[in-house]
Amino acid sequence: MKKLINHVDTVLAESLQGFAAAHADIVTLDPSLQFVRRRALKSGKVALISGGGSGHEPLHTGFIGHGMLDAVCPGQVFTSPTPDQMLAAAQEVDTGAGVLFIVKNYSGDMMNFQMAAEMLDRDNASVIINDDVAVENSTHTTGRRGVAGTVLVERIVGAAAERGKGLAGLKALGDAVNKSTASMGVALTSCTVPAAGSPTFQIGADEMEMGVGIHGEPGRRRVKLTSAEEIAAELTGAVLKDLSLKRGQEVFLLVNGFGGTPLMELYVMVNAANQVLAGAGVKAVRYLTGSYVTSLEMAGCSITVCAADPAMLELWDTPVHTAALRWGM
Amino acid sequence: MKKLINHVDTVLAESLQGFAAAHADIVTLDPSLQFVRRRALKSGKVALISGGGSGHEPLHTGFIGHGMLDAVCPGQVFTSPTPDQMLAAAQEVDTGAGVLFIVKNYSGDMMNFQMAAEMLDRDNASVIINDDVAVENSTHTTGRRGVAGTVLVERIVGAAAERGKGLAGLKALGDAVNKSTASMGVALTSCTVPAAGSPTFQIGADEMEMGVGIHGEPGRRRVKLTSAEEIAAELTGAVLKDLSLKRGQEVFLLVNGFGGTPLMELYVMVNAANQVLAGAGVKAVRYLTGSYVTSLEMAGCSITVCAADPAMLELWDTPVHTAALRWGM
Repeated sequence: MKKLINHVDTVLAESLQGFAAAHADIVTLDPSLQFVRRRALKSGKVALISGGGSGHEPLHTGFIGHGMLDAVCPGQVFTSPTPDQMLAAAQEVDTGAGVLFIVKNYSGDMMNFQMAAEMLDRDNASVIINDDVAVENSTHTTGRRGVAGTVLVERIVGAAAERGKGLAGLKALGDAVNKSTASMGVALTSCTVPAAGSPTFQIGADEMEMGVGIHGEPGRRRVKLTSAEEIAAELTGAVLKDLSLKRGQEVFLLVNGFGGTPLMELYVMVNAANQVLAGAGVKAVRYLTGSYVTSLEMAGCSITVCAADPAMLELWDTPVHTAALRWGM
Repeated sequence: MKKLINHVDTVLAESLQGFAAAHADIVTLDPSLQFVRRRALKSGKVALISGGGSGHEPLHTGFIGHGMLDAVCPGQVFTSPTPDQMLAAAQEVDTGAGVLFIVKNYSGDMMNFQMAAEMLDRDNASVIINDDVAVENSTHTTGRRGVAGTVLVERIVGAAAERGKGLAGLKALGDAVNKSTASMGVALTSCTVPAAGSPTFQIGADEMEMGVGIHGEPGRRRVKLTSAEEIAAELTGAVLKDLSLKRGQEVFLLVNGFGGTPLMELYVMVNAANQVLAGAGVKAVRYLTGSYVTSLEMAGCSITVCAADPAMLELWDTPVHTAALRWGM
């Protein structure tokens, strides 16, 4: 295992401390490391809380700040955070308007966020993200997995929360964005969980895992590595099939790297995905290209398409100030 | 070779086309692919032009836009662009105030930018970046190599150009920032140049290349992989030794990933570097953490420290709008 770490047991704590130091203008790290919170809370705003296993950075901590999240509960690598973490975060960042939990659909996250929601003595609701069209059910999930589409939900709901939208409205908006969003990914190499010390899966030098999950869990099938165009056709095709878009539909296009794939290749995939979209009469009007929802150092990428309505585009464009997404301020 | 590409010969063109589509609000791609330019030129502003081999994305194309560069000439992967490209870019983006070339110190880049500067029938000057303290001279260089410090020069000089500073002043500022900046990197794995098809160098499963260059060229020595703390101590120590900073000095700290190292580990390195800085009585007041100057999919990172004076900090904080760095607008 080749990693820039000290000890397997301290990776998360030291990474959070580095993150908090580098972004001290935006975030504060809870001294007991249960959560990372937005430094400046906004009174009367619904508090947005997300979280999940670490190893997907910048998701979620990189999306704390104005126009996105108020707090994030980081678990150990690929391990759900505990209900205690979520309760502590909620107590800390709820200013009275209630709490919206944004939860990726994995069994551990679902169970723990649900337990926190039931225990929490404050108004709360949850948006469940399940944008991955690769497989129904999986080694980690009942139903579809939540993957890179999470960024779109966190951004659009975060923008609406910043503007003062109430808890029920935010829950409805989050559900609507999730429903409009579909993703699918491919892995060229495995990731290695620090505590495991060896690759999560074995893959041949000429193979790829089509439909992989963001923990390196199996996808649809193991096939020979092919061209960017063919990969984009399969990923984008599956996503478009799921969304059943009309010709002329405007969309967000997120080409997301899994951590080990260089940006140069991600832009090759943008180019290839655009050709598939054009063939379907669909037009990307907002792009996000980079490693936003990663699987440690796994090579590969996912393609996310979200059917954009004018209200979503307008919210997307409002100011945001987080470690990983920033504009307008 | 596992890459998301179509053909080795079309990687650069397709990547540029994807980039231009995704960032059409910021950039325009020259139809003959000689350069990428800022969409909206500003009359009377000195034109800032950089470039070099591709494979280091987001450097340099990701830094085109308000507050940074006006044009970038991309060469093939790890191959210098030609003087023709630089001349074409200069003709296109100079609005009469002259051209400043920002050049990383590699033999090919130096020769070609110098040729372009001599042939160009417009006022021009060049800033040479040579921030890598690992080695004097190298397989690609006479003198020190130019590496991640380039981002700081392009940003600070770009901010001053946006404000209307003249050619001579920008040249002096760029030279001053370069002189205040030092970097050193480490590689855990090799990169693979698409046209070569096999790794640039061989490295053992328990080894690292200390002082590696951004093309995977040799550094100071090949040693056993050690802890993040020990690596940060060596990299940051070498950089601080070069800069000879006084206690109390405020600095920029850039922890730069080479493409294959996840963000989670880069923040572990930020935490470790901060401890070294604290030991030297030096304080990071601006941070940049991420994969900004990459070597394709190479795993590893570099640490850059730049001694910050108040004028540089103030320029850094002004609005910037590029694909890879954005704030204030």
